[in-house]
Amino acid sequence: MRLRHKPWAKEYLDSHPEYVLTAPPSGHWKEVFQNDHPLYIEVGTGKGKFLDKMSKKYPEVNFIGIEKYESVLVTGVERLVENPSDNIRFILGDVADVLQYFQYREVDRLFINFTDPWPKKRHEKRRLTYQSFLTLYEKVLRPEGEIHMKTDNQGLFEYSLESMSQYGMKLKNISLDLHTSKLASENVMTEYEEKFAAKGQPIFRLEAAFANMNE
Amino acid sequence: MRLRHKPWAKEYLDSHPEYVLTAPPSGHWKEVFQNDHPLYIEVGTGKGKFLDKMSKKYPEVNFIGIEKYESVLVTGVERLVENPSDNIRFILGDVADVLQYFQYREVDRLFINFTDPWPKKRHEKRRLTYQSFLTLYEKVLRPEGEIHMKTDNQGLFEYSLESMSQYGMKLKNISLDLHTSKLASENVMTEYEEKFAAKGQPIFRLEAAFANMNE
Repeated sequence: MRLRHKPWAKEYLDSHPEYVLTAPPSGHWKEVFQNDHPLYIEVGTGKGKFLDKMSKKYPEVNFIGIEKYESVLVTGVERLVENPSDNIRFILGDVADVLQYFQYREVDRLFINFTDPWPKKRHEKRRLTYQSFLTLYEKVLRPEGEIHMKTDNQGLFEYSLESMSQYGMKLKNISLDLHTSKLASENVMTEYEEKFAAKGQPIFRLEAAFANMNE
Repeated sequence: MRLRHKPWAKEYLDSHPEYVLTAPPSGHWKEVFQNDHPLYIEVGTGKGKFLDKMSKKYPEVNFIGIEKYESVLVTGVERLVENPSDNIRFILGDVADVLQYFQYREVDRLFINFTDPWPKKRHEKRRLTYQSFLTLYEKVLRPEGEIHMKTDNQGLFEYSLESMSQYGMKLKNISLDLHTSKLASENVMTEYEEKFAAKGQPIFRLEAAFANMNE
């Protein structure tokens, strides 16, 4: 994603603590949302359009987006300010710090949508499906919790299938061409995906769970 | 594959017991090949072109093809009769009977190339990556043994990734477009693959191992 510097972004985010949590209340998200609905998070949430659509489609779910770039996140917060929603919050922060944001097994589902593929082998550790990230996800997800991943990047998808499999995760509902598959009718597109879909190239998708979390 | 009936096929196969083993010597393959080279098998070997090329490329490996259609297998045997090779044998038989052909952990690698996708849900049990087949492969493969699979069928590939993952297998060297990948240089094409490749459609490929076989 192309980043445009917005010097006012930080100040804007700070002025909306009702949506952007600078000190995420690990273990106390029910108090934030004032209900005990399931908690779905998106890592690298970008401009938040996916969460916006999801929050309207699933009002009985609470959504939290994690994004590290102020100038990107600001778009998602502006949208929320214009069209307020009770079941979305954002965290301005890094996925690597996710254990500070959530308690052990507090999260019900985790979305990884069109994240940076980091194609160079020496950057493998930065991919959000690298083993060290899976270790973090395993800790915050509840045992039956699922990871739902989408990408247009073939290399990242191949890598993620291998990485998750080698980690011992179980895969299901895989599609190598999401928009022509039976899963398309339920699919909620991200902003990036909408632009990409017009080109007719395939979107790759998977669901994964940590098989041994029940033990 | 289109089947052409060849009434003479059975007689031809019977007349070449040096290549076609009607009573496969489970546990005694070393005596057949008169060496202790690794044993690689191909399920649904068809006309045997893949095995022919592999046997020349890897003379230190013994190859065995399993094929249930006489009229198809006959082509592979004719090729062998014209160009004899020490490290190929065929079994006229059914993959479902693989435990009769090999001892526990006798096989080093298993190839599944362009097998019937059986796209209808009610035919799932016939797909050669269905759980019941994986159970058989797990028994005959040695612990570090690998399954190498190729197909042009997206649905079968998606299914196989899920089936193997759900079984607990570990996946590696996945390619969603084999012929443009870094794995292409080592790839040995099947007869079907050669024809298919000309159309420019992607070939899907994976390697899988039974993670818990060491236990």
